[in-house]
Amino acid sequence: MNTSKKSIQIQKTYEALFALEDVREIFRQSLPSGFNEAEQEQFDGAIARVKGILTDLEAGSGKPACTRVGKLEARTREEEFINIHPIQAAGRLTPEARKALISYGDGYSTCDNCRKPFRLDKISKPPVEEFHQDLARFLNMDQARVVPGARRGFQAVAQSLLEEGDHVVVSSLAHYTEFLAVEVAGGVVREAALNDENVVTAEAVAEKIEASLKESGRLPRLIMIDHFDYQFANEHDVVGIGRVAREYDIPFLYNGAYTVGIKPVDGKQIGADFIVGSGHKSMASAAPSGVLATTDEWAPKIFRTTEMVGDLTGRKFGIKEVENMGCTLMGGTLLTMIASFPRVRERTENWDEEVRKSNYFLEQFLRVSGSRVLSEWPRKHTLTKVDTTNSFDVVARTHKRRGFFFSDELKARGIAGEFAGATRTWKLNTYGLTWEQIKYAADSILEIAEKYGLGIN
Amino acid sequence: MNTSKKSIQIQKTYEALFALEDVREIFRQSLPSGFNEAEQEQFDGAIARVKGILTDLEAGSGKPACTRVGKLEARTREEEFINIHPIQAAGRLTPEARKALISYGDGYSTCDNCRKPFRLDKISKPPVEEFHQDLARFLNMDQARVVPGARRGFQAVAQSLLEEGDHVVVSSLAHYTEFLAVEVAGGVVREAALNDENVVTAEAVAEKIEASLKESGRLPRLIMIDHFDYQFANEHDVVGIGRVAREYDIPFLYNGAYTVGIKPVDGKQIGADFIVGSGHKSMASAAPSGVLATTDEWAPKIFRTTEMVGDLTGRKFGIKEVENMGCTLMGGTLLTMIASFPRVRERTENWDEEVRKSNYFLEQFLRVSGSRVLSEWPRKHTLTKVDTTNSFDVVARTHKRRGFFFSDELKARGIAGEFAGATRTWKLNTYGLTWEQIKYAADSILEIAEKYGLGIN
Repeated sequence: MNTSKKSIQIQKTYEALFALEDVREIFRQSLPSGFNEAEQEQFDGAIARVKGILTDLEAGSGKPACTRVGKLEARTREEEFINIHPIQAAGRLTPEARKALISYGDGYSTCDNCRKPFRLDKISKPPVEEFHQDLARFLNMDQARVVPGARRGFQAVAQSLLEEGDHVVVSSLAHYTEFLAVEVAGGVVREAALNDENVVTAEAVAEKIEASLKESGRLPRLIMIDHFDYQFANEHDVVGIGRVAREYDIPFLYNGAYTVGIKPVDGKQIGADFIVGSGHKSMASAAPSGVLATTDEWAPKIFRTTEMVGDLTGRKFGIKEVENMGCTLMGGTLLTMIASFPRVRERTENWDEEVRKSNYFLEQFLRVSGSRVLSEWPRKHTLTKVDTTNSFDVVARTHKRRGFFFSDELKARGIAGEFAGATRTWKLNTYGLTWEQIKYAADSILEIAEKYGLGIN
Repeated sequence: MNTSKKSIQIQKTYEALFALEDVREIFRQSLPSGFNEAEQEQFDGAIARVKGILTDLEAGSGKPACTRVGKLEARTREEEFINIHPIQAAGRLTPEARKALISYGDGYSTCDNCRKPFRLDKISKPPVEEFHQDLARFLNMDQARVVPGARRGFQAVAQSLLEEGDHVVVSSLAHYTEFLAVEVAGGVVREAALNDENVVTAEAVAEKIEASLKESGRLPRLIMIDHFDYQFANEHDVVGIGRVAREYDIPFLYNGAYTVGIKPVDGKQIGADFIVGSGHKSMASAAPSGVLATTDEWAPKIFRTTEMVGDLTGRKFGIKEVENMGCTLMGGTLLTMIASFPRVRERTENWDEEVRKSNYFLEQFLRVSGSRVLSEWPRKHTLTKVDTTNSFDVVARTHKRRGFFFSDELKARGIAGEFAGATRTWKLNTYGLTWEQIKYAADSILEIAEKYGLGIN
């Protein structure tokens, strides 16, 4: 292990990036006609600094300089650690997205060439319009819009469809943002039951629809179900549920926060009226970002344009979509989505391999006697809820660092992202790790178990 | 002029930044224990590339390599040009924000240390909670939240306050997002009239309140007024309007999209119940970002927490705020706000100087015979609407490039951000330019006028 060398090199990489940003700033402050004397001096100094840093970076030597940005520490989790954080794994930026952020971080950076009709999804340079079409095709839906997070997609649909007191059938494992979307729209959630395997079946949804009908005298206004839930990442029967939705003629929102961007999603095959995905959760994009896709049938309602007219001026802004509040992601966030997209599209084709890695890791994980997987088994996803109450928590009970002993041990091995201090039930996500990283992480778990005398099968 | 050298250097700066991102990616793909042989080779190659680029960067020589990111061209507008775009000027990132984006671009990057009660504004590392307190103090309000754009702040307030058909008094120069916020909340706008100087006075708002009362039988539910509007950036009497709001006991939303982050804003002195600001427009932050601040009196309503209960599971998510849909800016956007904040706070103190620069530029601009300023004069803001129908448009009428001749001439001089092709009425913003840049830009305008034989006074 030579983490200290690597750690210095990572630090130096940041130093070099930051020093180049200082170079860039000199251009920003100077005249188009070129540098004056003071600027040239600044520039020479900054370049000399970058060179010095590069020498250290190459050698992995030198004293790390301060890479704090004001009160912010530079975040090096993804460089220094194998990150198994449950919600961070698939939102990690691609190199392309990081480059796009460097170029397009400034405020309204998408708007250089905004022309009539002045709407984000109509901008052709950068290719925002094309990206919107790509997104719709990617999900096999008719139309798509980017939104500031999946939650804003749920909200747009709920607010478009619901009237006060309307029921929405959700999963008993629904994410809190689905609750909020229903609440902000004046609706009420009705939870479909889980079966013994913690899975929502089409039958459970049908039963809940009937119960809601009996209770309120009318059908629920919307069905909103996660393909994989945030707790166990169990797979729920979205195709069956789509069929039930059609039978009852209730619109169906497919929550793809844990699928869109990592596994193939086919809206038509699912029979979804709405598909919502998360950019920062599963599309290798900066937060807040996401996608809301729908059919040509529903688009006029969900993406309805403003009808408000100024009573005095007669002003109208007819092209602007009410639920999207006009434009949504006017800068860097959108550009990360666009830049990551080719690789994101490609990686969904490798989903089976990601699931294999997840299962391999957990097979090793389960060799520690007393450890359990609470999610369905074998895994169909890379996010998993585990229970180490009878393994690592046994150690924690008498360790002076309590549950933090486990975090300490993981950290010492270059692994991060578990919930620090938690040794009973916790979640992990292996998405995007290489086989080498998977094996390294699995070995680390076994090593820690061995160190503390836990049985290994 | 040596723009080509500068241009190559800018290109090379991007190349170096991008090559360092490739270095960074090698760390991300490798094991905590260090590089394997292939990775070491990759690393050596990447470092050698950076060094080569640096040599070119220093000399301003060499052939620019391709810095496209997939279909995206690297955006170099801020480096290559003096940018006078009306909405981009104050959203340009500080170097600190750019460094923060480099470190914190990944999806849920704010969430490494999210602990109970699991809400963005309670995170202490990075110092998100502290930043929220700073923000509230900065605006002299009691509480603040970050939001994905000012528009989402308007929406949160409108949806919290309005019932179907409620009137909201807005300006006759209200931004379209205010219209949308009222519409999405089921309300109706009622526009206060402008006086002869295109300014909304307290009297005009009082009159509109009375008219609305007469029309609907009850008082408007909300007053929402821009301190400086998006069209002329004229100053509207927000203090007087705040007083009228109190007299009628109607809550007052101060729209600070064109003030918060560039000039001092004191919510208590204004008598505002809500202050909304835009991160990407005026706080040197990535999009979408913004702030919504309020008083302790209104916070329980605007920031109300969820009351939804799962009917089957009994689940509650009590800490999550309904209108914010829980957490809002979970990654890079928020970090740019935090990183820019010290400089943003400082720069508001220099507002008078910014206004002086704006007036100086426009005084020169007006020397071109036939040119007019449509905004109030002298300027109290850096955003201005001008009319060149009787100057540059006269040239455009017979020029084979039509209005684009003007853009061409500006571009040739390293100036961008005017609405390409527009030579009648258009907007510009001098915010943040140095005196040297201001003088250079003013000289350029005069130079173009002279070249085409327009009179100069």
